[in-house]
Amino acid sequence: MILYGYYRSTAAWRVRIALALKGLDAEHRFRHLRKGEQRAAEFLAVNPQGLVPALVLDDGHVLTQSLAICEYLDETHPAPPLLPRDPVARAKVRAVAQAIAAEIHAVQNLKVLNRVKALGHDQETANAWAHDTIAEGLAACEALVARDTRFCFCETPGLADIALVPQLYNARRFGVDLAPLPRLAAIEAACLALPAFAETAPERQPDAE
Amino acid sequence: MILYGYYRSTAAWRVRIALALKGLDAEHRFRHLRKGEQRAAEFLAVNPQGLVPALVLDDGHVLTQSLAICEYLDETHPAPPLLPRDPVARAKVRAVAQAIAAEIHAVQNLKVLNRVKALGHDQETANAWAHDTIAEGLAACEALVARDTRFCFCETPGLADIALVPQLYNARRFGVDLAPLPRLAAIEAACLALPAFAETAPERQPDAE
Repeated sequence: MILYGYYRSTAAWRVRIALALKGLDAEHRFRHLRKGEQRAAEFLAVNPQGLVPALVLDDGHVLTQSLAICEYLDETHPAPPLLPRDPVARAKVRAVAQAIAAEIHAVQNLKVLNRVKALGHDQETANAWAHDTIAEGLAACEALVARDTRFCFCETPGLADIALVPQLYNARRFGVDLAPLPRLAAIEAACLALPAFAETAPERQPDAE
Repeated sequence: MILYGYYRSTAAWRVRIALALKGLDAEHRFRHLRKGEQRAAEFLAVNPQGLVPALVLDDGHVLTQSLAICEYLDETHPAPPLLPRDPVARAKVRAVAQAIAAEIHAVQNLKVLNRVKALGHDQETANAWAHDTIAEGLAACEALVARDTRFCFCETPGLADIALVPQLYNARRFGVDLAPLPRLAAIEAACLALPAFAETAPERQPDAE
């Protein structure tokens, strides 16, 4: 497998964590989003959307959208599981992962911040947009996760944790105060104690600046 | 089950379609988003996020995030399936559903347009933001769906179709030219020929204005 990513793409980090939790190897290729490398013809031939992450399977199929990729890895390599077995519990894990992916990350990613700047605003205003989106979204997540588990919902990390930890990294980048989010902070600490989270972090990637 | 929705919420429409495809009944309660009814204490007691859709199960569990709810319905009521059996095929269906939910809808929904207006822009600018987000995102989807199937990926409707049809409704609301999207338009026509899509449409809901 080949994973196209970018060290600071939180969506790509999600897939790196899932691969690591499953003990799967992939060739990592990095495309620098701020330099626009995801728009190069060579990469558009792989993923016409020009988005990372993109996972190229050994048979040539290209998978996109980080959560869909994580579910694929979970279905094809069931151990350790990224989702619980009970359908209600699965729905709650997926809801947190999707709340982070859609309502936080999708609204504060580089593409949207560039759209804010294209309306005539400066970087400071774009950063405030990201800050407020993340702070509001994570406050909702603090209320959604389970109260008394080591990770978001279980004693082992799963899809919600995979979405959460990269989002907390982005929260720090944009100066979000994490003090009102003690439960999320405790989950993050439990995750980052694991190599699958710590060793896949942005600053540990070969393209980190 | 009780489904909290709003006639024009495309995320709520997705769940209405899934319920209908599965032949499941739910009590429908509507909360008027533009009037802020999703922020009423009575509803916040159901869903602290103040978001629709929220599906209250008979045992009191509250499920949120439309795609997570649809997967729950698919897991608990497997026929007819909303996802194919092959893992790669499932990943491609989920990728289109998530691309629509995260990269299109989450960036053009009422909450984000209100954020654009809070930066000092008028409704016309907010509408242009929605227009451009939808047009760009649907162009990507036109390339992602299968070429020769009746629906997005199969001969029966699934999760990608459930996400697509409400998004095309929003595309029209914001004046997006659908002429460059003939494949999506054909899929939409196939879907709207089915009662599960047609009878759950916004204008058919009791709270429609």
